[in-house]
Amino acid sequence: MGWIACNNVISDLYAMGVSRIDNVLMLLSTSTKFTTKQEDAVLPQIMSGFRDCCFAAGTQVRGGQTTRNPWVLLGGCATSVLSKDNFVLPNGAKPGDLLILTKPLGTQIAVNLNQWLDDEDTDKLKPTGMNDEDVRKGYDAATVSMMTLNRKASSLMRKYKAHAATDVTGFGILGHAQNLVECQEEELDFIIEKLPILNKIAKADDGMGRMFQLVKGYSAETSGGLLLAIDPNEADKYVAELKAANGHDIWIIGKVTSGSRKATIIPEVKIIDVALDENEKIISL
Amino acid sequence: MGWIACNNVISDLYAMGVSRIDNVLMLLSTSTKFTTKQEDAVLPQIMSGFRDCCFAAGTQVRGGQTTRNPWVLLGGCATSVLSKDNFVLPNGAKPGDLLILTKPLGTQIAVNLNQWLDDEDTDKLKPTGMNDEDVRKGYDAATVSMMTLNRKASSLMRKYKAHAATDVTGFGILGHAQNLVECQEEELDFIIEKLPILNKIAKADDGMGRMFQLVKGYSAETSGGLLLAIDPNEADKYVAELKAANGHDIWIIGKVTSGSRKATIIPEVKIIDVALDENEKIISL
Repeated sequence: MGWIACNNVISDLYAMGVSRIDNVLMLLSTSTKFTTKQEDAVLPQIMSGFRDCCFAAGTQVRGGQTTRNPWVLLGGCATSVLSKDNFVLPNGAKPGDLLILTKPLGTQIAVNLNQWLDDEDTDKLKPTGMNDEDVRKGYDAATVSMMTLNRKASSLMRKYKAHAATDVTGFGILGHAQNLVECQEEELDFIIEKLPILNKIAKADDGMGRMFQLVKGYSAETSGGLLLAIDPNEADKYVAELKAANGHDIWIIGKVTSGSRKATIIPEVKIIDVALDENEKIISL
Repeated sequence: MGWIACNNVISDLYAMGVSRIDNVLMLLSTSTKFTTKQEDAVLPQIMSGFRDCCFAAGTQVRGGQTTRNPWVLLGGCATSVLSKDNFVLPNGAKPGDLLILTKPLGTQIAVNLNQWLDDEDTDKLKPTGMNDEDVRKGYDAATVSMMTLNRKASSLMRKYKAHAATDVTGFGILGHAQNLVECQEEELDFIIEKLPILNKIAKADDGMGRMFQLVKGYSAETSGGLLLAIDPNEADKYVAELKAANGHDIWIIGKVTSGSRKATIIPEVKIIDVALDENEKIISL
């Protein structure tokens, strides 16, 4: 959990093509409801996960704040100081660009299903059509995905001169695509034609009456991938090099056209079922 | 409250002699217990107070995070990027230096007493020997003090070449003095001989059986002053110039000697009763 929280923090810099992170502050609150024993068990694990993620990113926690709160809270603040050619402004997409997504969607649902299984809440699980093993596998795959750093995705943004990017988190893929299209210098539309989604999770959401609005693009992600707009002549090279480094698929999910600052998912969107199996359980740094 | 929270955030930079603040992020959580009406009344005020403090400090809120939580939470992260001659390392105190404190102590107690008065908790207030008007005046004085920026105190640190500084917050004056003495390059002691304390607050704590340990130096402060070590030839000039700018007293409260990295308050410590009356209700920027 500490690793994923840290990864979520530094990912904002990765989305700017910043792959050298100078400093990280950790914000942590323990729960006022914890016993001393619970606190001693949980907090060191959270803190070491957070620290380990910093090490993996080539940076360090050098300060922060700890406090007490009814809920456990975990976050941070990452800083880099760079010259202009070491980051990518997120506003330079062009008509004809392709849209790339570097991690599959569905983390929120996978985590929720696993929680329901822990709570033995079979009523909630039934409509998903997933058995216990499916749920655990989905959770493991989501965890691997959330732990994967966007660092390489970020450095390749500079190498292949990506025009704009954001990381996909709380607003879902469409929410972030909309935010990104609104801040472009040119008046553009982002058209999303494919959605790579963790194995069986799209069907599970269908079964639940699309409660999470995953295929509509609104299901929240934690520590999601980068969504980037890139010249079509560079897109294949970006995908190939990142795939070689990360060991899992990277997807061209759509295109950029002249337009009116709208992001849409086409009605006949293609769902790509992403199996992250045991062999791929290698955290990409 | 927003102003004071922001001031508390940026004060960490002021304690390094940094008086130009490049960027501020605001961290805010609304309470899950608020009604919409309460939220609409409280949050805009907090946010505009936070923003106004940034403007007063010559900087701006350029990002941050908002969330929901049982308790309202408020904080931030301030950043400056500077060359070495634009800040003061906190580890260069010398034997013979004088210790200066730029704000009076007692804010935590003043705020607590005011809360008890709001709650009509007369049992708690009785031993303080303060009447209602005293409590309100103490609270007003504490508010003025907490709202006062350490910006001028900070720029004068560079002008008069202060050797080390910290801001006095959650650990109380002695806690922060101890932290500061431990990080000095030389083996020193910090001897505190005077404690400037908001009007009647020291007596109030005495009446309560020293519940807050104010005179022992452990009562927490919010947005407290700077505690700094400075060459004795510069101390009077620093005090005079900051007093002229801020309009209230600044105090030489002790001295630095060779020693064993210990901060102490002498047993016969002199309490300075600091009246911040109506005429002095000018926020020092």
